[in-house]
Amino acid sequence: MIIVTTPEATEAQIAHIVERIEEWGFKVDISKGAMRTVIGVIGDDAAIRVKPLAAIPGVESVTPVLKPYKLVSREFRGGNHSHVKIGDVTIGEANIVLMSGPCSVESREQIIGIAKEVKKAGASILRGGAFKPRTSPYAFQGLGLEGLKLLAEARKETGLPVITEIMDTKQLEMVEEYADCLQVGARNMQNFSLLKEVGRSRLPVMLKRGMSATIKDLLMSAEYILAEGNFKVLLCERGIRTFETYTRNTLDLNAVPVLKKETHLPVVVDPTHGIGLREHVASMAVAAVAAGADAIMTEMHNDPEHAKSDGEQALLPHEFQDLVARVKKVAEAVGRSL
Amino acid sequence: MIIVTTPEATEAQIAHIVERIEEWGFKVDISKGAMRTVIGVIGDDAAIRVKPLAAIPGVESVTPVLKPYKLVSREFRGGNHSHVKIGDVTIGEANIVLMSGPCSVESREQIIGIAKEVKKAGASILRGGAFKPRTSPYAFQGLGLEGLKLLAEARKETGLPVITEIMDTKQLEMVEEYADCLQVGARNMQNFSLLKEVGRSRLPVMLKRGMSATIKDLLMSAEYILAEGNFKVLLCERGIRTFETYTRNTLDLNAVPVLKKETHLPVVVDPTHGIGLREHVASMAVAAVAAGADAIMTEMHNDPEHAKSDGEQALLPHEFQDLVARVKKVAEAVGRSL
Amino acid sequence: MIIVTTPEATEAQIAHIVERIEEWGFKVDISKGAMRTVIGVIGDDAAIRVKPLAAIPGVESVTPVLKPYKLVSREFRGGNHSHVKIGDVTIGEANIVLMSGPCSVESREQIIGIAKEVKKAGASILRGGAFKPRTSPYAFQGLGLEGLKLLAEARKETGLPVITEIMDTKQLEMVEEYADCLQVGARNMQNFSLLKEVGRSRLPVMLKRGMSATIKDLLMSAEYILAEGNFKVLLCERGIRTFETYTRNTLDLNAVPVLKKETHLPVVVDPTHGIGLREHVASMAVAAVAAGADAIMTEMHNDPEHAKSDGEQALLPHEFQDLVARVKKVAEAVGRSL
Amino acid sequence: MIIVTTPEATEAQIAHIVERIEEWGFKVDISKGAMRTVIGVIGDDAAIRVKPLAAIPGVESVTPVLKPYKLVSREFRGGNHSHVKIGDVTIGEANIVLMSGPCSVESREQIIGIAKEVKKAGASILRGGAFKPRTSPYAFQGLGLEGLKLLAEARKETGLPVITEIMDTKQLEMVEEYADCLQVGARNMQNFSLLKEVGRSRLPVMLKRGMSATIKDLLMSAEYILAEGNFKVLLCERGIRTFETYTRNTLDLNAVPVLKKETHLPVVVDPTHGIGLREHVASMAVAAVAAGADAIMTEMHNDPEHAKSDGEQALLPHEFQDLVARVKKVAEAVGRSL
Repeated sequence: MIIVTTPEATEAQIAHIVERIEEWGFKVDISKGAMRTVIGVIGDDAAIRVKPLAAIPGVESVTPVLKPYKLVSREFRGGNHSHVKIGDVTIGEANIVLMSGPCSVESREQIIGIAKEVKKAGASILRGGAFKPRTSPYAFQGLGLEGLKLLAEARKETGLPVITEIMDTKQLEMVEEYADCLQVGARNMQNFSLLKEVGRSRLPVMLKRGMSATIKDLLMSAEYILAEGNFKVLLCERGIRTFETYTRNTLDLNAVPVLKKETHLPVVVDPTHGIGLREHVASMAVAAVAAGADAIMTEMHNDPEHAKSDGEQALLPHEFQDLVARVKKVAEAVGRSL
Repeated sequence: MIIVTTPEATEAQIAHIVERIEEWGFKVDISKGAMRTVIGVIGDDAAIRVKPLAAIPGVESVTPVLKPYKLVSREFRGGNHSHVKIGDVTIGEANIVLMSGPCSVESREQIIGIAKEVKKAGASILRGGAFKPRTSPYAFQGLGLEGLKLLAEARKETGLPVITEIMDTKQLEMVEEYADCLQVGARNMQNFSLLKEVGRSRLPVMLKRGMSATIKDLLMSAEYILAEGNFKVLLCERGIRTFETYTRNTLDLNAVPVLKKETHLPVVVDPTHGIGLREHVASMAVAAVAAGADAIMTEMHNDPEHAKSDGEQALLPHEFQDLVARVKKVAEAVGRSL
Repeated sequence: MIIVTTPEATEAQIAHIVERIEEWGFKVDISKGAMRTVIGVIGDDAAIRVKPLAAIPGVESVTPVLKPYKLVSREFRGGNHSHVKIGDVTIGEANIVLMSGPCSVESREQIIGIAKEVKKAGASILRGGAFKPRTSPYAFQGLGLEGLKLLAEARKETGLPVITEIMDTKQLEMVEEYADCLQVGARNMQNFSLLKEVGRSRLPVMLKRGMSATIKDLLMSAEYILAEGNFKVLLCERGIRTFETYTRNTLDLNAVPVLKKETHLPVVVDPTHGIGLREHVASMAVAAVAAGADAIMTEMHNDPEHAKSDGEQALLPHEFQDLVARVKKVAEAVGRSL
Repeated sequence: MIIVTTPEATEAQIAHIVERIEEWGFKVDISKGAMRTVIGVIGDDAAIRVKPLAAIPGVESVTPVLKPYKLVSREFRGGNHSHVKIGDVTIGEANIVLMSGPCSVESREQIIGIAKEVKKAGASILRGGAFKPRTSPYAFQGLGLEGLKLLAEARKETGLPVITEIMDTKQLEMVEEYADCLQVGARNMQNFSLLKEVGRSRLPVMLKRGMSATIKDLLMSAEYILAEGNFKVLLCERGIRTFETYTRNTLDLNAVPVLKKETHLPVVVDPTHGIGLREHVASMAVAAVAAGADAIMTEMHNDPEHAKSDGEQALLPHEFQDLVARVKKVAEAVGRSL
């Protein structure tokens, strides 16, 4: 950590800062400038980081030298990337993995019909919500356990492994029984109780970036899961909240190359929620693949006019087939495959 | 709801839109312009709102006429405001209520010492975290049950009712046993499982605005709690995330008069997290009171240099006393009292 | 325009609203609901739009039906796209155009050396700043007229047409003498005096999106230029300002398909300023092409360690060659060429 | 400046970084950690700041020790504050100064009528736009020279000094002839040509914060004006752009105490544009005074239903009188006066 003092800091204050640091067992490196003093704090960065350095009188700023995340960092894997298996599908290798399905599981007929379309189009993982985080308490909240059972039926029918959202620590056991991958949604990205809980699961976890989460925040939330022992984590960019109102969110594709550099974990992009406009989902999907994404998650529905949620942004089956064809070409142009 | 069609919408598409709406049991009011057709959808707004109107081909935009929240709205109370009791302290009346205490409960000595300072300075509610949502898994996570017990001891010692954060549905019973008011933190503002759970509690709930939550989002999250039957809800503005980096967050005081107009629920402001700079907390506190806040929550610590969290933004006891004196004067200037 | 009244609006207020609208020469379509009245205002939308409807007592909200831009809209071109010529290079056709060069023109040797590298790598337009908008008055402000002359020399030497920034209406004549395309920078996107001035130029104009400009704002600023008679306008996405601090800006690739849908004008993407990190510029460039961009502008420098501005984000010549190779493959994958 | 190297930085790269720094005439202070090397660069901070340190291979981050602004800083005035005179009204002393008037000058009758109301209510400076920066080219663009003359007439009639916006360097001479204070609008905050031009004016300048400008950006833009010799500068907070859509902008009152700490320049707050909702302007005005503002600028109109711009947010004369009464009380509560 590097401490810069205020211009008014007295000798006594500087001595007090040094004393505190030494009291905590760290060493100091002092460099006096004309206006301010710079104090380097030397020792275990993680141990230093949790001390209230900024609370000491005379301190103007505290700047960390090292990154706050450890287990998720590329450095932890010696600069390599990890891959994560969902059922028998591997994410993080040369091929681009496609996940698709409806926003919500609505009925047996609906989920099995869509699952077949998902498979036919060439996607390899089925998504579908049984527990739905909705802004309004009056909106459809998902079928719950019934929805999980229908997802398992759809898997049996098609062979596609299933990813579904978990919203609460109390749901873990139930969701683990039916799903192949747990999804932690954007609104729960800093639900730390839930992160710890899924960190103790045997299943892989896809963690979605919160709407106002920085890339560093996302990595720190993933660190929670790894710190509990579960290293099977996927990170998902799904749009951040900005001042732009034309699009539902601002899909932040900048996060893709940045994450691929910073962490060994695979990166998924969800263009459906990211841009929120059906007609532009495919363009953002191919852009995500060009930017380096390992997998693409989209919403698809065979009857969006009757969908119980997100009908306006779900692709129709033929639109999804078109997306797959476009993704295939761009994947190959960047040295990957479908 | 008001539907505007695309300029390319065909007669057949418009007929299909109308058919769908009538199939759902609503009426239409059609107004054809030179470029676009405007279709008013008449009926129960809440019922219309959940239909996927935007998914129908030919629809360009869908604009609601009514607000999506009901129980939290001023209209629901005939234009009046509610007040909420925490212990025997009422929030939402002419007097400004002050809540203060440390970020985290750290020890018996610490919490009782600070509680006495809180009381001495003139505040009437004690805050303190037993379960702490921390960005890093390696930071202090709170004393848990032990912290709750110490809060109860501090209440016994000082008579101050206690507010503390609940992070998980599994903690409800435990927290209810010791606290006088439940706090749902900014990171859990859209943890809908938790909202439903505290909606079934007998205790009042202070709901903090999420870092990227619009005012409407905040009201919709409060609606979840009221919809479960708990009307004892306080809304807390605590800073939103913007591009500004000088301050920790951007305390959005605009939300104060807006909330006082839109909802009957009392409004609390937390300038400590809002601006995140100790020296400016008091200025933002008085500004919040001038803007119309009903209560102010701040962090105070008697030894911030050794605090286990947020030491850099906590006020010292004498700084808090100064804040109270300043708040008193401004409160009186706007026709209120301490 | 669609007016929604407040729930408290009286009959007299509604009559007064209607009277005002009719006084301005428009017609009304009234639909009374249980809680609010909806009043459609019928007539020339542009004429209605400038009236202070929201200032009339009893009005809760005013929602426009039509888009506020006219000349820039796709509809104005019957749904087609335009192309714009810079020198003899056409932007907006099947081929992707590359523009590159240094942030600032620094010396004859520098600009001619870089121009040759730009050409060699396969780019067809040279960029370089003579007038530099710098956050600090103490930073290098550009060579001015001398810089323009050096750009013209570099063009003579390589045949590459030249694009350069104009910062002030007073500079127009001078810049027009040496440049092939005028650039209006992000910080001047709403410098309406400058927009009008370049709207009267014979040269094409590349308008960069402001850091906090919505897509609609960008289109309205372009509308200023077209309204003065200059239809040779390129729109450039170059990153918006969000809460994310890892990247310099957030390159908003969502804007690409949205602009291609809304306007007939060609779309350029500047990944250098967009992400601001040299090592990730190429990834964002290929993502931009996949998303549908017509041209890519990047910064390149042959000696970034001595650059007078933006050295840290400029590509080295060999990095730019690599970018060109990657762009070529992705361009072909989306049915375009270099 | 403090340089942190990447974990992969080689000895040769570190030696090269040091060599570069010494070649520029600065000294270094090297501190080797387990993972990264920290290099302090010692010398004239302003000279170091403009060097492309981040462009040197092996550099991970560059952190400045000193503030980038000099003339505007409190330190430059020995920790004191300045005051600025507009006509014979002084801003920055114990009394709160009120500026009010219409968005646009529309006619002799309008501006003189409103000026009399402004004076009657107790404000001491008249605002009014002759050149109007409008998002749409089809909206009213101001009366120009005619508007300036009418402002001068209103001043003659009431004795109130006049502040009005300048949008272009070409307008300076004309505006200087009629106005008492130049306003640089939010959209021109980084129009550096204009900043330099007004920096050479004999008139005071009120600089409005751009919609996406950080506090540091605002101070750097003010530094441009002072660097040209004009120290009569007022800074105006007028709302930033965030994700919130209920309010027109997010008035950032956090900027008030921060600016009062960082700079000696007086601080004005414009709640009218800041929140953009007539009914909440007074609440934000008193909050601004409580936060420490030196002056408040608001829009007032005697016939907002016929205003040519911003009618929906302008106060009526009686509403402004009410605001003045509320401001007076809060000003006194914070030890100031009207």
